[in-house]
Amino acid sequence: MEMFREGIISEPGKVVLRQREKRRPGAREALIRIKSSAVCGSDMHIFSGRHPYVSLPTTVGHEVAGIVEETGSEVTAVKVGDRVCVEPLITCGTCYYCRRGRYDYCENLKLKYRTGNSGYADYYYAEEQWIHRLPDEMSFDEGALMEPFACTVHAAMKAKIHLCDSVCVMGDGPIGLMLAQLSLACGATHVYVMGLQEDNLTLAKTFGCIPLVSGSEGIEEIMRRTEGRGVDVAFEAVGIPATFNQTMAVTKRGGRAIIFGIFEDEFKTKALVDAMVREIEVVGTSSYCWDFQRGIDLVSAGKVDLKSLITHRFPLAEVQKAMDLKKGAGRQPLKIILEP
Amino acid sequence: MEMFREGIISEPGKVVLRQREKRRPGAREALIRIKSSAVCGSDMHIFSGRHPYVSLPTTVGHEVAGIVEETGSEVTAVKVGDRVCVEPLITCGTCYYCRRGRYDYCENLKLKYRTGNSGYADYYYAEEQWIHRLPDEMSFDEGALMEPFACTVHAAMKAKIHLCDSVCVMGDGPIGLMLAQLSLACGATHVYVMGLQEDNLTLAKTFGCIPLVSGSEGIEEIMRRTEGRGVDVAFEAVGIPATFNQTMAVTKRGGRAIIFGIFEDEFKTKALVDAMVREIEVVGTSSYCWDFQRGIDLVSAGKVDLKSLITHRFPLAEVQKAMDLKKGAGRQPLKIILEP
Amino acid sequence: MEMFREGIISEPGKVVLRQREKRRPGAREALIRIKSSAVCGSDMHIFSGRHPYVSLPTTVGHEVAGIVEETGSEVTAVKVGDRVCVEPLITCGTCYYCRRGRYDYCENLKLKYRTGNSGYADYYYAEEQWIHRLPDEMSFDEGALMEPFACTVHAAMKAKIHLCDSVCVMGDGPIGLMLAQLSLACGATHVYVMGLQEDNLTLAKTFGCIPLVSGSEGIEEIMRRTEGRGVDVAFEAVGIPATFNQTMAVTKRGGRAIIFGIFEDEFKTKALVDAMVREIEVVGTSSYCWDFQRGIDLVSAGKVDLKSLITHRFPLAEVQKAMDLKKGAGRQPLKIILEP
Amino acid sequence: MEMFREGIISEPGKVVLRQREKRRPGAREALIRIKSSAVCGSDMHIFSGRHPYVSLPTTVGHEVAGIVEETGSEVTAVKVGDRVCVEPLITCGTCYYCRRGRYDYCENLKLKYRTGNSGYADYYYAEEQWIHRLPDEMSFDEGALMEPFACTVHAAMKAKIHLCDSVCVMGDGPIGLMLAQLSLACGATHVYVMGLQEDNLTLAKTFGCIPLVSGSEGIEEIMRRTEGRGVDVAFEAVGIPATFNQTMAVTKRGGRAIIFGIFEDEFKTKALVDAMVREIEVVGTSSYCWDFQRGIDLVSAGKVDLKSLITHRFPLAEVQKAMDLKKGAGRQPLKIILEP
Repeated sequence: MEMFREGIISEPGKVVLRQREKRRPGAREALIRIKSSAVCGSDMHIFSGRHPYVSLPTTVGHEVAGIVEETGSEVTAVKVGDRVCVEPLITCGTCYYCRRGRYDYCENLKLKYRTGNSGYADYYYAEEQWIHRLPDEMSFDEGALMEPFACTVHAAMKAKIHLCDSVCVMGDGPIGLMLAQLSLACGATHVYVMGLQEDNLTLAKTFGCIPLVSGSEGIEEIMRRTEGRGVDVAFEAVGIPATFNQTMAVTKRGGRAIIFGIFEDEFKTKALVDAMVREIEVVGTSSYCWDFQRGIDLVSAGKVDLKSLITHRFPLAEVQKAMDLKKGAGRQPLKIILEP
Repeated sequence: MEMFREGIISEPGKVVLRQREKRRPGAREALIRIKSSAVCGSDMHIFSGRHPYVSLPTTVGHEVAGIVEETGSEVTAVKVGDRVCVEPLITCGTCYYCRRGRYDYCENLKLKYRTGNSGYADYYYAEEQWIHRLPDEMSFDEGALMEPFACTVHAAMKAKIHLCDSVCVMGDGPIGLMLAQLSLACGATHVYVMGLQEDNLTLAKTFGCIPLVSGSEGIEEIMRRTEGRGVDVAFEAVGIPATFNQTMAVTKRGGRAIIFGIFEDEFKTKALVDAMVREIEVVGTSSYCWDFQRGIDLVSAGKVDLKSLITHRFPLAEVQKAMDLKKGAGRQPLKIILEP
Repeated sequence: MEMFREGIISEPGKVVLRQREKRRPGAREALIRIKSSAVCGSDMHIFSGRHPYVSLPTTVGHEVAGIVEETGSEVTAVKVGDRVCVEPLITCGTCYYCRRGRYDYCENLKLKYRTGNSGYADYYYAEEQWIHRLPDEMSFDEGALMEPFACTVHAAMKAKIHLCDSVCVMGDGPIGLMLAQLSLACGATHVYVMGLQEDNLTLAKTFGCIPLVSGSEGIEEIMRRTEGRGVDVAFEAVGIPATFNQTMAVTKRGGRAIIFGIFEDEFKTKALVDAMVREIEVVGTSSYCWDFQRGIDLVSAGKVDLKSLITHRFPLAEVQKAMDLKKGAGRQPLKIILEP
Repeated sequence: MEMFREGIISEPGKVVLRQREKRRPGAREALIRIKSSAVCGSDMHIFSGRHPYVSLPTTVGHEVAGIVEETGSEVTAVKVGDRVCVEPLITCGTCYYCRRGRYDYCENLKLKYRTGNSGYADYYYAEEQWIHRLPDEMSFDEGALMEPFACTVHAAMKAKIHLCDSVCVMGDGPIGLMLAQLSLACGATHVYVMGLQEDNLTLAKTFGCIPLVSGSEGIEEIMRRTEGRGVDVAFEAVGIPATFNQTMAVTKRGGRAIIFGIFEDEFKTKALVDAMVREIEVVGTSSYCWDFQRGIDLVSAGKVDLKSLITHRFPLAEVQKAMDLKKGAGRQPLKIILEP
């Protein structure tokens, strides 16, 4: 009986590699040998034991890419040896939304990592409908980043950016830096990135964005450059009340503010009220729907640079070290890759 | 020297009729003999002395209709004897937004009632560009209601209602009842009106809406009727945190919530955060832009009944009584008309 | 072995009732006892033997409503005794478009009447996914009309009609009269119907439309009433070059023209070229997608009157007479109902 | 009395430089010393004496950039020495469309070159509202190309291109090559350019497009690459029936086809009829509206390369030679610049 390793958050602050039995894939499943897994910010909520919907111990990790090692009897979309990444979802396929093609709204949606499938592992099982082939020139690391990138593609499309729009991205983490590049890819000519980490702001500049240190001076600078009107589109990619309120403040009359950040608690806001009078559209975004293929095409076309967002790399065996680094104080890593 | 009466809020809770000199209209102005003025909810903030931008004493009233009595030398759009209503705005005509036809966003916008022009009066001066002729069959009362109605037309267009959409209107005041009728006029088949006043809910029902008493039971009823999904479009037409949060809660995934109510203070919200995860679009609305003519056409076509919203009527001389009634406790009047 | 009757176009101009064996419904099928079938204009192309894709002999008829008489073992959505209508389609459910919920674009789409299922019959077999329950107050005749009505709902949604838009419908047949009512239901205030049949134009007027006799005088009348600008939205519901060109001519700069009519041949056009310079959007429409339920809701809400469109009624046994009438010269019937 | 040269088409095939008196600019005008004028394809219709609305002799040329030499007494937007380009329009400012900011639809619109103002000249008079300042790094040649480029920006915005869309541009002339670059700038990942001139197709490739030789093989190649579905968006930038029909054929179900080319005559089409059944939106485009500033920003941001589109350059004195070259058989020049 062959075994493989998979990561488990066993208690707050502790991740262990457990041995799991390797089984044959189901009829419509493929078995994927993982080559690259990426650590998501939401994994850290689980790691710290404070995730509202996930109790410990639990499997963890949902950003994976690898090679198809075995396919089920009915699989036709991929074959052994294919280089692939995976949408880590389970949908019912029959509800009101699934029938309309909106599988992200599935009324019975499950996330694979919450159903005993760890993405920090040697192997991953996936139904063929959720597997996407990677172009030859695309790395496994980029493939692993397709999951968070698809979220940002979804958000960017909701923003309805027009040619020559001005955009402000609140947040210089991996999501912020993806959104900033996507804004440029959509035709925005002035993309402001507000953050607190010098390296990340420098990276934003190399992408063609205008970096600004978070805070009221940055907001004033944007207002000055937009002749007092604010930006056409703003993205909130932090998830705290201060940046939410700044997002409201920086958006032009009739403009669009996309809320990507996850807010843990209720919060007080006056800026929202003012934004309503200025006729702003405040738009939520969540997950993805048909966006993986878009993400692959965009990276393949050279529109977005994901490689520069990878700042750290560990062997899977050192997953505890990787998590500790991500959790640690001081400069935040952008994306950490685990290699089995 | 001929004089005419105009209403002044002289001190909190007190409105007086002052004599004002009747002058010739300017070159592009018309002098309008007022036949009907309506009392706006926002007038009450001034009446109570608590309006954030208006200090006492002040002119008041901005919903007026009447007959053109005299025209300036360059006026061509209207003539003496025309039955008309007026947009009570002053715009610059030259700013970024005015040039683009978005006069509601004018960077130098002024409201006439804050510049010494009372709508509770015998006469009103207006530049011809802001005057709209009323069809023969339209009453002066309906003409006076064009100002608030234009606000709701503006809001209804932002809602992007599709054929067969379900709509929930929070609030059974005059604005709520206008929005509910407009939702039906846009093709919505299920329009829920939530409120607390039995007469108003009964009126909503005669318009073809489904009346519900405000509160969690009403929300549950809507969720039950929409198979747990909520409505496509919701309007907030109250302006308090509780109804804001209910508006968020009742809106379908990917749906649209239009915020019409004015919120006096900052407020705490968790429902907004949840709504963002459900990908709701929260849309502000304010004022109007090219909506008066639309309003006139809609009433003229019989799509909306404004007359039923008029619950009280006073001669201008009894303006104090009218304001006291509106301010009073107990059942809220819908619209009060003052007749000079 | 029980038998039932079904209509067959045996040769050009001849329809016969053939006996067919009544079988048990498949696992996901229901057997429906037809109460009302409607004759479609496209049936007449088959009747005359000139349909480009259908050769004789063939089954015919696809607008049906009736009562569920028996259900397959896996059917859960409907039960015996339900009053229903049917979408007469067969889709693959797995292609690019089906997965995205756009079943009208199914790459393997088939029409049931071209696969041996006649809608002029005593019974009809349908998969449960295509069956829609009728509200108690809705007649079978209205149910049978859901098929063409869903086509017009689909078209009306493509038109993106705004509150107070002006609309011109070219054609006063059943489709034109449905589109005209839907335009009003979407908030249009001025809906012009152009046609040649006095009774139909009179009916359009009772619906609240402005009837005009087809031709250049009618076009001039519309241009005069729209101050020379034309209508916001036009529908072509005839399918001949002359009305196509009139549709182009009557549409406002930047307006939208929806082409519903089926054009048999290539045709010469100069009006299209002129329309392009005026920035018109010429939009095709075809079939329906999730529009049956919308249609049922709209009729149920009293937004559209389908009953008035039924001008003739025959027992199924007299189907030949019905087809001859429809084909005949002189005043065109609107909708003909066949009752088994 | 100072004089300057301006180009006149005196008779078919003949352009002469006439002396014109230099006057002081009007109160709101600026006098611009032209540094670069570009030759437009539409100028050639005039040159050949076959322009439907322009009779000879006439002034000609409307793509100009230069330096402000003198300003009228009321001019505030520009000052002497500013490097600028000009929108060559005269609008009324008061009609239905002008008031709504849609000056391209002005009901009294005039083109400056048809009112005695030649753009092939030493000097140009322009009202300040139509003058746009060029960024320091932008050349006068690029400034002169803003006029045609603004037309393409206008067209590209009508196309509503989404991230990852596929686009086909019919035509490899200057307009086609601008539209292709703009499609990439809007987020399209696959942009096919179909044309007949090898050099231009090679240039398209350097921009990141996929060049294809016009004709059925090219269309088949696109259909093959899009799995038989066609492109999301197609642009017709030639103006002949064959490419119109190819544009229809290559557009996906529900896709959008933008018609930029000017068609001189009526034409026969079957492809349009088929496109309607496939629910394509055929969209006209013409002129520009607030697009000059967008064009300047896009070139300034490096999103579009206009310099590579300039293939020839002549001193103004050799304007006859330039026109002869443009009119000549064989390889078509892209853009020709005249320098006073």
